[in-house]
Amino acid sequence: MKNILGVDLPERIEGVGPLRPYDGKRFGGTPFEAGLKAPVKETRKLLDSLEEAIRLSGLKDGMTISFHHHFRNGDYIVNMVVDKLAEMGFRDLAIAASSLSDCHAPLIGHIRNGVIRRIETSGMRGELANAVSNGLMDTPAVFRSHGGRAWAIANGSLKIDVAFLGVPSSDPAGNANGFSREGDNSTACGSLGYAMVDAHYAQKTILLTNNVVSYPNTPCQIPQTDVDYVVRVDEIGNPKGIASGATRFTTNPKELMIAEKTAAVMEASGYLKDGFSFQTGTGGASLAVTRFLRDKMLEEGITANFALGGITGAIVKLHEEGLIKKLLDVQDFDLDAVRSAQENPFHTVVSAHHYAGPGLEGSAVDSVDMVVLSALEIDTDFNVNVLTGSDGVIRGAIGGHPDTAAGSSLTIITAPLIRGRIPTILDRVNTVVTPGVSVDVLVTEAGVAVNPARRDLIGRLAAAGIETTPIEVLKERAEAVVGKPEPVEYGDKVVGVVTYRDGTVIDLIRNVK
Amino acid sequence: MKNILGVDLPERIEGVGPLRPYDGKRFGGTPFEAGLKAPVKETRKLLDSLEEAIRLSGLKDGMTISFHHHFRNGDYIVNMVVDKLAEMGFRDLAIAASSLSDCHAPLIGHIRNGVIRRIETSGMRGELANAVSNGLMDTPAVFRSHGGRAWAIANGSLKIDVAFLGVPSSDPAGNANGFSREGDNSTACGSLGYAMVDAHYAQKTILLTNNVVSYPNTPCQIPQTDVDYVVRVDEIGNPKGIASGATRFTTNPKELMIAEKTAAVMEASGYLKDGFSFQTGTGGASLAVTRFLRDKMLEEGITANFALGGITGAIVKLHEEGLIKKLLDVQDFDLDAVRSAQENPFHTVVSAHHYAGPGLEGSAVDSVDMVVLSALEIDTDFNVNVLTGSDGVIRGAIGGHPDTAAGSSLTIITAPLIRGRIPTILDRVNTVVTPGVSVDVLVTEAGVAVNPARRDLIGRLAAAGIETTPIEVLKERAEAVVGKPEPVEYGDKVVGVVTYRDGTVIDLIRNVK
Repeated sequence: MKNILGVDLPERIEGVGPLRPYDGKRFGGTPFEAGLKAPVKETRKLLDSLEEAIRLSGLKDGMTISFHHHFRNGDYIVNMVVDKLAEMGFRDLAIAASSLSDCHAPLIGHIRNGVIRRIETSGMRGELANAVSNGLMDTPAVFRSHGGRAWAIANGSLKIDVAFLGVPSSDPAGNANGFSREGDNSTACGSLGYAMVDAHYAQKTILLTNNVVSYPNTPCQIPQTDVDYVVRVDEIGNPKGIASGATRFTTNPKELMIAEKTAAVMEASGYLKDGFSFQTGTGGASLAVTRFLRDKMLEEGITANFALGGITGAIVKLHEEGLIKKLLDVQDFDLDAVRSAQENPFHTVVSAHHYAGPGLEGSAVDSVDMVVLSALEIDTDFNVNVLTGSDGVIRGAIGGHPDTAAGSSLTIITAPLIRGRIPTILDRVNTVVTPGVSVDVLVTEAGVAVNPARRDLIGRLAAAGIETTPIEVLKERAEAVVGKPEPVEYGDKVVGVVTYRDGTVIDLIRNVK
Repeated sequence: MKNILGVDLPERIEGVGPLRPYDGKRFGGTPFEAGLKAPVKETRKLLDSLEEAIRLSGLKDGMTISFHHHFRNGDYIVNMVVDKLAEMGFRDLAIAASSLSDCHAPLIGHIRNGVIRRIETSGMRGELANAVSNGLMDTPAVFRSHGGRAWAIANGSLKIDVAFLGVPSSDPAGNANGFSREGDNSTACGSLGYAMVDAHYAQKTILLTNNVVSYPNTPCQIPQTDVDYVVRVDEIGNPKGIASGATRFTTNPKELMIAEKTAAVMEASGYLKDGFSFQTGTGGASLAVTRFLRDKMLEEGITANFALGGITGAIVKLHEEGLIKKLLDVQDFDLDAVRSAQENPFHTVVSAHHYAGPGLEGSAVDSVDMVVLSALEIDTDFNVNVLTGSDGVIRGAIGGHPDTAAGSSLTIITAPLIRGRIPTILDRVNTVVTPGVSVDVLVTEAGVAVNPARRDLIGRLAAAGIETTPIEVLKERAEAVVGKPEPVEYGDKVVGVVTYRDGTVIDLIRNVK
């Protein structure tokens, strides 16, 4: 055979394989190619119609679509897209969201109407969570940790057909960021760490943005090579729901007591030394831990090599003071964190896979010294529940809880002994999210319990004068005050499958009666 | 069945699929998991023996290994690794390098001994190229452009079993950069743009570094999630061969004349306006074009949105003056470019795929207004050869030539009319690398020729007072001086398969007699 330039080619060459002849086109494979030179530089990726993008994506009934939760309870994207899909007549879709919030209650109608058949998510809240717990869906929801989801996507066990990702800025070719360096930056979310995984591995990726900026939108979190279409929309979310303002420290004496004890445990553990690393979350006690840590670091003249995870203004403050050298940021919780993600060169946005993926190559959580996590319930085997309430109803999210607990050298759970007259410590948590084998210490206002598997820690805490109490004793103390709680009454229907980070099933959630 | 926590699980759930029970381990899937908490944070990724890394990688005879060429003619990695593989008894390996240089002549012995059976590369030089042109290999070498290689790797048509990537810094988990923020930064190469693709898509990725830095080496060009092993070695390359010092502008009058004409063509073309974008390469004329462009930008008070490709100090200077807003950097050619890649926030390292990949989503080259490229030969159909010399021997590299030519709105080839008494313009180039359909203008010291397909340009140049000459006339002018060259005499053996960016075959290279 001959190619278009007249070169004689054999059909195949031993060791090289079959040859395909050059066809005379300038581009290879892009849908934007044209016979003429000087193509329009505003590529055909940029659309003004979500419906057109959906049609071009090849989405079909029964496929899996995905969303990120960086806009948290201010998200407009999930409802906007699913409303449009319903209007276009799609059915039996699976939603694979990195998480879902109160604002996604309208999904209930779409589930009832058969538009949505399945949900995979880190968590659920509000009316949707209530309805699912009451048996709304024929197929149970699958819950994954942030790292577990990223790995499932990367290794192909969770296949995303079309990702719909809201972004605070994108250029016409799809280079996107969680903030904007031009135009309207009021709906910034900072990191797009969860979305980066979807963009890369989805068969088709559609960005939705209110803010198309000039090419190239670099440095970028999502590169154009991961993006098929960019849709211009009026609004992507409510700034007030996306990021809170400055975070105030707690004045709750119980939270302050827990935080101070936690910091003392960290110091006594031996991990608080120059070059250490840690993650603390949001919530009163966690933020206060960060403040107590700061005092200790200044006292002892040490700095941390890095902090990671969901980033708060409290962590940013330490970074900007030089007390934490680097930040690895998968998600931002407040406006200071968002600003820092845009401004600070060593505040680095990382993908959920880089942050917490349990894959063969490991991830950032494997290098962390200490993590402070919360719990809705913890049991005497140190198993932790952050997904269902004491009434058995879904009301939280796995998040990175099992990922950081597994990776960290010291995993501390902070919780009040009693919440609203219900003990936090049980014989067995209603839903196991994080297995006890990865949990080391429980700090409550009434005492500190150490996992008996960590004898080394008991000794170190004792040497530092920190009293520890068997977790069973703490449990009895709470029961002495409010009594032993009645077990939740569940039905027979499985409404949720709780996976561990490697995709195995760690627990099932049944419907509430 | 029950999982290890005693949860009763069905074998499968309709709509969810088969369930796997949680097995009680803290980690899922990493080879670094341990029964105990407090794992050693220096993961087992970090090795002191290349041989051990090779064994752990599972490399087998007949597999494909890959290398990058960021260390250019200072590279120690290819020879070090292939020597070791030969010593370990491997045979029939395929090398997929992003490019090969003079320093890789020792591969000749390994080809003769059967250790290396196949080569894929952008180019070859020196003794190795000579030997291949003389029929050294039983299987022809496959030549790919930088964008074509990246796309072939990303779409699975070029499968890499094990990538061996030299990096100037890596932390123990594999977060790597083309420079180092701690320790010895003397072997920096700046961008690792070619290597980023290999690291991500190879089945196994082994980094080799002389510089293990503290965790986390962020921001990083290669993330740990793309890395399986990090091998500590004494040296990765010769700094003198990796990057040249400051580049001096040419004083060659012929080059200066070509450069000035090129800048005039750019101005007259209509593409030189505020917000434009461009790529110029290395070499005397290209660097001088950048200087003349600077003058025009200052005169007219305009700035460029971005420049891209292999970055030079000349481009960095314009960036630091504020004349080019952003740089997209796949490779650095001198020490100023390396420094800038490390220091300047809008000098962004991009992967070869992001830079030039011809895949479905397009890449940066598709957004470029003007590119200035060189040629060893050009023919009257505007086809360009940058791979074989006038004697038919391989002596160059495809590089990003066909990628940028295809993407750019205005592709200018600069070349002297005659080189060493050989005309540059032929009836047909010896090897077609870039098809004429993607080439718009040829600038020589003796005149400017415009591709007849670009009638719009002919008019604009005429309006600006720039005389154009049919390319056939320029060819005759050269032949009037030095005569028509004798055609190269080739043998029958195919020694090289030249692919276009989409993987089709654009030309074959035969052995020289």
